[in-house]
Amino acid sequence: MNLTIDRARLESELECLAGFSAAEPPAVTRIVFSEPDLRARAYVKCLCAAAGLSVREDAVGNTFARWAGESPELGAIGTGSHIDAIPNAGRYDGTVGVLGGLEAIRSLKAAGFRPRRSLELLIFTAEEPTRFGLGCLGSRLLAGTLSTDVDGRLLDRDGRTLGEVRTAAGFSGDLGTVALKPGHYAAFIELHIEQGPLLEREGIRLGVVTAIAAPASLRVTIEGEGGHAGAVLMPDRHDAFLAAAEIALALESAVKATGAIDTVGTCGVCDVFPGAVNSVPSRVRLELDIRDIDRARRDSVIDAVSRAAGQACHKRGVRLGWETINADDPAICDAKIIQALTASAEAHSLAYRKMVSRAYHDSLFMSRVAPAGMLFIPCRLGYSHRPDEYASLEDIAAGAQVLAEAMARLSCEDAAAR
Amino acid sequence: MNLTIDRARLESELECLAGFSAAEPPAVTRIVFSEPDLRARAYVKCLCAAAGLSVREDAVGNTFARWAGESPELGAIGTGSHIDAIPNAGRYDGTVGVLGGLEAIRSLKAAGFRPRRSLELLIFTAEEPTRFGLGCLGSRLLAGTLSTDVDGRLLDRDGRTLGEVRTAAGFSGDLGTVALKPGHYAAFIELHIEQGPLLEREGIRLGVVTAIAAPASLRVTIEGEGGHAGAVLMPDRHDAFLAAAEIALALESAVKATGAIDTVGTCGVCDVFPGAVNSVPSRVRLELDIRDIDRARRDSVIDAVSRAAGQACHKRGVRLGWETINADDPAICDAKIIQALTASAEAHSLAYRKMVSRAYHDSLFMSRVAPAGMLFIPCRLGYSHRPDEYASLEDIAAGAQVLAEAMARLSCEDAAAR
Repeated sequence: MNLTIDRARLESELECLAGFSAAEPPAVTRIVFSEPDLRARAYVKCLCAAAGLSVREDAVGNTFARWAGESPELGAIGTGSHIDAIPNAGRYDGTVGVLGGLEAIRSLKAAGFRPRRSLELLIFTAEEPTRFGLGCLGSRLLAGTLSTDVDGRLLDRDGRTLGEVRTAAGFSGDLGTVALKPGHYAAFIELHIEQGPLLEREGIRLGVVTAIAAPASLRVTIEGEGGHAGAVLMPDRHDAFLAAAEIALALESAVKATGAIDTVGTCGVCDVFPGAVNSVPSRVRLELDIRDIDRARRDSVIDAVSRAAGQACHKRGVRLGWETINADDPAICDAKIIQALTASAEAHSLAYRKMVSRAYHDSLFMSRVAPAGMLFIPCRLGYSHRPDEYASLEDIAAGAQVLAEAMARLSCEDAAAR
Repeated sequence: MNLTIDRARLESELECLAGFSAAEPPAVTRIVFSEPDLRARAYVKCLCAAAGLSVREDAVGNTFARWAGESPELGAIGTGSHIDAIPNAGRYDGTVGVLGGLEAIRSLKAAGFRPRRSLELLIFTAEEPTRFGLGCLGSRLLAGTLSTDVDGRLLDRDGRTLGEVRTAAGFSGDLGTVALKPGHYAAFIELHIEQGPLLEREGIRLGVVTAIAAPASLRVTIEGEGGHAGAVLMPDRHDAFLAAAEIALALESAVKATGAIDTVGTCGVCDVFPGAVNSVPSRVRLELDIRDIDRARRDSVIDAVSRAAGQACHKRGVRLGWETINADDPAICDAKIIQALTASAEAHSLAYRKMVSRAYHDSLFMSRVAPAGMLFIPCRLGYSHRPDEYASLEDIAAGAQVLAEAMARLSCEDAAAR
């Protein structure tokens, strides 16, 4: 097919979307349901409507923009990603899959393509766990893997429930209506920056993802005893922060002890209470993130950290709270989608490699309710979740082109991906 | 002298003052120049005016309430403390010295006492370092130990300068006018809760302070490299938080290595940036507090932590910033004041002991410009800087009584304390 990706339009849309941010450029901060997120949503919906797509939103704010096919009763071919961004992030994570996916659909329209199955762009709510501590909130609900009590159970740092926050943002329906009906998608493909260094290092334009690593997130709370930093003598202390420091270092040791390059562990959140220079920390909240492509190996790290944390807290006379936020299974990508992507790449003579996704994506959950796959493009030095995250327009356009072709192929197949 | 301390009034005033807080009771949070601090200042000034004292404020908000003596040209006898409170603190730290000092002066007025030297209540600005990272801001300026460039140099967490913040609070004069003239006070006595367990443990009502321990505060910044928690492999990491964890634990080890019960060290602030569960920490800010009654021993701990921090950061390939916020000398209390306090306690048959102050007080700086001393009362279990901080009304009243008597004695002496 002769498809034209409009790079100038894609570039200006990426630029414009990056402007919806609570941080100074080049950093992007776009927390779900914050003012910048709501403005960014309005912008993307406007682009979808201008492209002639019909837009609907579900009760948690997942947004669907549909181009009805000739057989709208058949499962659709979906693509999409997220637009929320963690504090001080970059401008490509998620947005490349949303705007690149939209551009792919627009290029098919412009080429006069007539899809048999409907094509649908999906913008997920809260892929990032920043606000509610749980990543892929929208896609978990679409996949039906979350009970709807999350509405009252998930709290942001200000103590507001998901229910309060989404209602204030204008999404007030029943969360029970979010789960997708069986067969809604015949295939779902997410275009995304790699968030790792492999493609760039090897000079390869595209990564066809075969599996998505299994992430686990833990919330650790340590309750010690506060007091005056001058007056409480060392033998009388029950310092929550020192126990937290030991736990963070124990996580690093346990990860390194697997000897596997694919095991990673991070303590990215450490909130110290009361947080005054002259006060002994009475309480600390840590958040740990542990990932591996091998679930058993990942879980062995969690066990080791849990034991070390128990020992550190016992020794210091502080209480340990240990909560698993999520501990997901890895996803295996759909063979038919992998084949559609590799065939499209070959049709354009674009070099690709098959690879594992170490990062965590909505497609992990989409794979529970649809044949799913992912297409990666390089990002500079593998940097992501930081302001200097960068992907070239050339690579983004190549990704959109191969995505469009693959969607077209899948749209015309009788059995589609299933 | 036959002095009557009005306990009911003191109790209701302590209760009322505790209500000016940004935290839910029983916790008190009263950050300098915040709305609760400004309301609390207005309340205390009102009490002083009602007691017939003439009130003035200096350019940084230190507040003086004076009862002119028969020889107003002589150095005054001062008392006072602070009303600001760290996050999630209690209601007695500082306030006992302000309201107890006021009650002492009122009891002398009520008894018909005629002071020769003026008596003056002093409420210091920002004894707590919470907002600007530097404790005893008001008393350091009174003592002339700070250059006035602090006005532009000290920043709060929102990046606002001391100058901006104090001006917005209504204190806009030149900081150069704050330093006290030589001889302003012939003696200064601060009444305070012990913030340690000794008096309660020994069943002694009063502590007459002979020396104040020497505190040091350090700000440590660690700059590593951020990135995606899934995608950045362990060998490629430069995690600022893991270096911070090692520094906090090194501080504890160095303090314990002195073998001296009087050495204490605390890491009470740890701000992690960007602070997201799925992001490798790129930057951390720590604040360390190290105290000892022996300055050389305290400084040896600082040296040991500095070396350990350098090693940890070198090993991890992260940059270390090391800033001494303050490193003060210990203070020796004035012999004449100690004698006036012990004589007054004996006159009331109240048991006292001489003791060292391990906590940090405005009197440390007042001792640079005036003969200074402190009077401690017990606090339950030694708890301070926490919501369950508690001192009994009986002990507060006993402290106010002995303070009043000592001030009366000093006010009538020709040479006073000098």
